[in-house]
Amino acid sequence: MANSKYQYVRNFELPDNLLPGTFVVVRIDGRGFTKLTTKYNFVKPNDRRALDLMNGAAEAVMKDLPDLILAYGQSDEFSFVFHKDCMLFERRASKLVTTIVSTFTANYVLGWAKYFPDAPLTAPLPSFDGRAVCYPSDTNLRDYLSWRQADCHINNLYNTTFWALVQQGGLENRVAEKELSGTVSADKNEILFKRFGINYNNEPDIFKKGSVLYRDFFPTSTQSSPAASKSPIIQHPT
Amino acid sequence: MANSKYQYVRNFELPDNLLPGTFVVVRIDGRGFTKLTTKYNFVKPNDRRALDLMNGAAEAVMKDLPDLILAYGQSDEFSFVFHKDCMLFERRASKLVTTIVSTFTANYVLGWAKYFPDAPLTAPLPSFDGRAVCYPSDTNLRDYLSWRQADCHINNLYNTTFWALVQQGGLENRVAEKELSGTVSADKNEILFKRFGINYNNEPDIFKKGSVLYRDFFPTSTQSSPAASKSPIIQHPT
Amino acid sequence: MANSKYQYVRNFELPDNLLPGTFVVVRIDGRGFTKLTTKYNFVKPNDRRALDLMNGAAEAVMKDLPDLILAYGQSDEFSFVFHKDCMLFERRASKLVTTIVSTFTANYVLGWAKYFPDAPLTAPLPSFDGRAVCYPSDTNLRDYLSWRQADCHINNLYNTTFWALVQQGGLENRVAEKELSGTVSADKNEILFKRFGINYNNEPDIFKKGSVLYRDFFPTSTQSSPAASKSPIIQHPT
Amino acid sequence: MANSKYQYVRNFELPDNLLPGTFVVVRIDGRGFTKLTTKYNFVKPNDRRALDLMNGAAEAVMKDLPDLILAYGQSDEFSFVFHKDCMLFERRASKLVTTIVSTFTANYVLGWAKYFPDAPLTAPLPSFDGRAVCYPSDTNLRDYLSWRQADCHINNLYNTTFWALVQQGGLENRVAEKELSGTVSADKNEILFKRFGINYNNEPDIFKKGSVLYRDFFPTSTQSSPAASKSPIIQHPT
Repeated sequence: MANSKYQYVRNFELPDNLLPGTFVVVRIDGRGFTKLTTKYNFVKPNDRRALDLMNGAAEAVMKDLPDLILAYGQSDEFSFVFHKDCMLFERRASKLVTTIVSTFTANYVLGWAKYFPDAPLTAPLPSFDGRAVCYPSDTNLRDYLSWRQADCHINNLYNTTFWALVQQGGLENRVAEKELSGTVSADKNEILFKRFGINYNNEPDIFKKGSVLYRDFFPTSTQSSPAASKSPIIQHPT
Repeated sequence: MANSKYQYVRNFELPDNLLPGTFVVVRIDGRGFTKLTTKYNFVKPNDRRALDLMNGAAEAVMKDLPDLILAYGQSDEFSFVFHKDCMLFERRASKLVTTIVSTFTANYVLGWAKYFPDAPLTAPLPSFDGRAVCYPSDTNLRDYLSWRQADCHINNLYNTTFWALVQQGGLENRVAEKELSGTVSADKNEILFKRFGINYNNEPDIFKKGSVLYRDFFPTSTQSSPAASKSPIIQHPT
Repeated sequence: MANSKYQYVRNFELPDNLLPGTFVVVRIDGRGFTKLTTKYNFVKPNDRRALDLMNGAAEAVMKDLPDLILAYGQSDEFSFVFHKDCMLFERRASKLVTTIVSTFTANYVLGWAKYFPDAPLTAPLPSFDGRAVCYPSDTNLRDYLSWRQADCHINNLYNTTFWALVQQGGLENRVAEKELSGTVSADKNEILFKRFGINYNNEPDIFKKGSVLYRDFFPTSTQSSPAASKSPIIQHPT
Repeated sequence: MANSKYQYVRNFELPDNLLPGTFVVVRIDGRGFTKLTTKYNFVKPNDRRALDLMNGAAEAVMKDLPDLILAYGQSDEFSFVFHKDCMLFERRASKLVTTIVSTFTANYVLGWAKYFPDAPLTAPLPSFDGRAVCYPSDTNLRDYLSWRQADCHINNLYNTTFWALVQQGGLENRVAEKELSGTVSADKNEILFKRFGINYNNEPDIFKKGSVLYRDFFPTSTQSSPAASKSPIIQHPT
C-alpha cells in the first residue's frame, strides 16, 4: 500500500475503553448558553420552547442509540445513561460521547426553527460539550440523578424568585441579586408568596423537576406490542 | 446546600488531560455516510457540494477555536490540529473533542440547505464521531497528515475508476468491483486513460488531495493587519 | 527557587486515579520464575518452602497496608484486594501497585534465607511485576477469585500428573507432555490413581486450592481484643 | 476449560500503554525514609554508604533492563529513562514501573548487609514507590533531569548547613531550623564558610550533584568489544 510507511501513526491512538460492569453516564452541556439566551430573547426564568427543543433532541438521541436506558434533562444540560452491560463501541469513551453530542447537536440545531420560527440561528451556532462518567452501583446512579435534580430545584427556585423581583417587582438585576444573597429556600418561598402571590409548589413540574426519558427496559410478556417499548417515554417527574 | 449529600458523585469524574508538549489531532468521521450518500443522491465518485459543505463546517470550527493551527479534510472526515503548546480546556480530551464535533455538526447540518436546497434533511440526521490523538514530534504530525492524504489518493483513484466503469462503462457494481480486485495504481490509471480517455492527473486537486485549512500562526512583522491572520486560509494542496 | 524554571515538567505527570466505589485488585506475578525454580532446585510439582515464603511476604504486605481486606495466592502469583471504599493514596494506580510490589519483593528476598538456607540468592534476584484492576460488584470480585483458584486447580492437577509420570514413571519430560496432551481432568485423575496410586483429592489443600489471607473487617462487639483483628488470618480454603 | 465461565473478569483489565515516541521516565522514591535514616543511624547530612547502596541497586536495574539509557539518583530517589523508541512490554505503564521498583527493591534489600553490616534490617523493611511520566522532547527530558538535580543541590545545601549548625555549632534542631528560615543560598554559603570554615564548593560531587548512570547507547565502530557497552557507566556529574 502506498500509505504503509505512514501507518505507524495509528500506534499513537491509545485505547480509552470504560470499565465494564458500570453505568456510563454521558452528560452534555450547552456551551456559552447564558449569552445565547440573551441573543435569542429566551423567556425568563424558563423558556418552555427551549426545554421542549432540548427534550426533542434528547428523544432523537435515545431513538438513535437503543443502548440508552434513561436520560435526564434540565436547563441546558442532559445526562444519558447506558446500561451496565452495554458494550456499544466496546465502551470507548470518545466514541460514546461524541456520538451523543453530535446527534444531540444536529437535532437541536435543525429543530430550532420549529420552536423559534421568528429567531433564525446565526453564527456562532449553539453547541454542546460532553463527558462520560462511570458509576458502579445502582445507588451511585440514583445519587447522580438526585444530584442533577437537586441542582435543577435550587437553580429554579433562585431564578423564579430573582425574575419575579425583576419583572414584577421592578428591581434592577443587581438589586435583586443582592436581596437574594444569603437567603435559604424558605426565604425565597416566602418572597414569592408574600410579595407576588406565587405558590412555588404550583410551578410546572418541568421547571421544578426537569425531564426524564426512559426506555421500557424489561418489557412484560403481556405487552401486545413489545417493539413499542423501543421508543423512549418522556416524563416530568413529580 | 440541599444537594451536598449527592455531590460525592463528582469524585467519579476521572481526569482525561492529554500529555502536554504534543500536537493534539482531533479526527472526526461521518457516521454511516455510505448510507447517507445514497439517501441524498450524492454525485459519484465525488460530490463537490458535499466537500464544500465539509470545508465550510471546518472553517466555522477553526473560527470558533483560535487554538487550532491546521485542519485537513477529505471524503467525510476532517482532522483538526492543536498546537503543541495549546492549553485550551487544560487539554481535557473529552472537552476538546466534543467541542469540535458539536461545532462541526451544527454548521454541517445548518449549512446543508445552502448546498442541497432540493434535498432537505430528514431523520436520522447526519452526525459525526471523533477522537483525540497526541503526536510528539513534527515528523509524527507530518506523517499523520501524509497518511490521511495517501488514504485520500488511494480511495479517490479507486472510486474514480470504479464509477467510470459503472457510469461510462455500463458495468454492474459487482462486475466493476471484481475487475478492480487486485489491481495496482498503474492498472487503474491505464483503465481510466485507455478506456475512458481520463487522465487522472487532470482530476481536480480537491478530489485527489483533499483540503487544508491553516492559520497564519507566526504573522510576519511586515503584515499591515496581523489580526487578519486569525482567519483560516483554505487550500487544496498540489 | 533555583529550580522554578524546570518545575513545568511536573505538568507531564498525568493522574491515574482508579474509579471510586470499586474493589481494587493488585495482582503480582513472579518474573521469569520458571528459570528460577530450576536455578534453585525447587521441589516439583510444588515446593512447600516456596509457597510458605510467598505467604510470608503476603502477610507482611497486609500488615503494612491495613486497607487490604483479602489476599489470594497460588504458585508465583498473589492477588491483593482493597475494599471498595478504600481511598489510600487517593486510589492512584501506580502508587498502590508499586507499594505492594516493593513491600512484597523486600520480604520475599529477605525471607528467602529462612526457607532456602542452603541456596543463597545470586543475581539476577527474584522480582515481581504487578497491575491493578477494578471490579465493580461483589459478584465480579468473587468471580475473579474463582478464576484464579480454577487456574490453580487446573495447573496443579496437570503438574501433579506430569511430575508423577516423570519422577515415578521414569518418562522423559517430552514424553510425559505428549501423554497428557488432550487429556481432561478425569483422565489425569485416573492416571494418578491407576498408575501411581495417588488419590488427587488427598493432596494438600495448599497445593490444590492456594492460600487466602483475610482481615476480620467487621469485628464483632463481643471480641475481647478487637485490635487483634488487625492481623491478617491465613487459610488454605477447602 | 473449567475456568472459562470466570474468564470474563479479564475484560476489566484496562490497557495502560504509554504514548509512543516519548521518553519514559520512571522515578522511584523511598517510602518513609526519614524514619528509616533515624532507625539505622544514617550519617547526616549524607551517608555515603546509603548512596552507594542506592547506586548499586540502580546499576542492577540497568543491567536487568537493557532498554534503559540513563538513570539519575540523589537522596532516596532514582529516575530511570527509557529511550523514545523503546517498546518494552508494549510500553505498559504498570509493567514498566513495577519491574523497575521490584528489581531495585530486591537489590537494595539484599545489598544492605554489605554497606550496613552492623545494622541488620528488621520489619518494616525498606520499600519504594514509583510512577512513569512521558516527556516528548529532548528539552523536556533535560529540564526534568535539571529539575531533579536542582532539587538535589537545594536540599543538600540546606542539609549541610543545618547539620553544621547542629553538629558543630551545638544548636538544637529547632533553633537551627529557625536560623535557616528565610535564608537564600548566599546566606547558607556564608554561614558554612564564616562559622565553620566549610567551602561548600569543596563538598563531594556525589552529595552536591547526585549520580548518573548511562549506557553507551550508540557504540562507535572502533570499539573492540561492543558488548561491553551494555554495562552502565556511573558518574557524579561535575
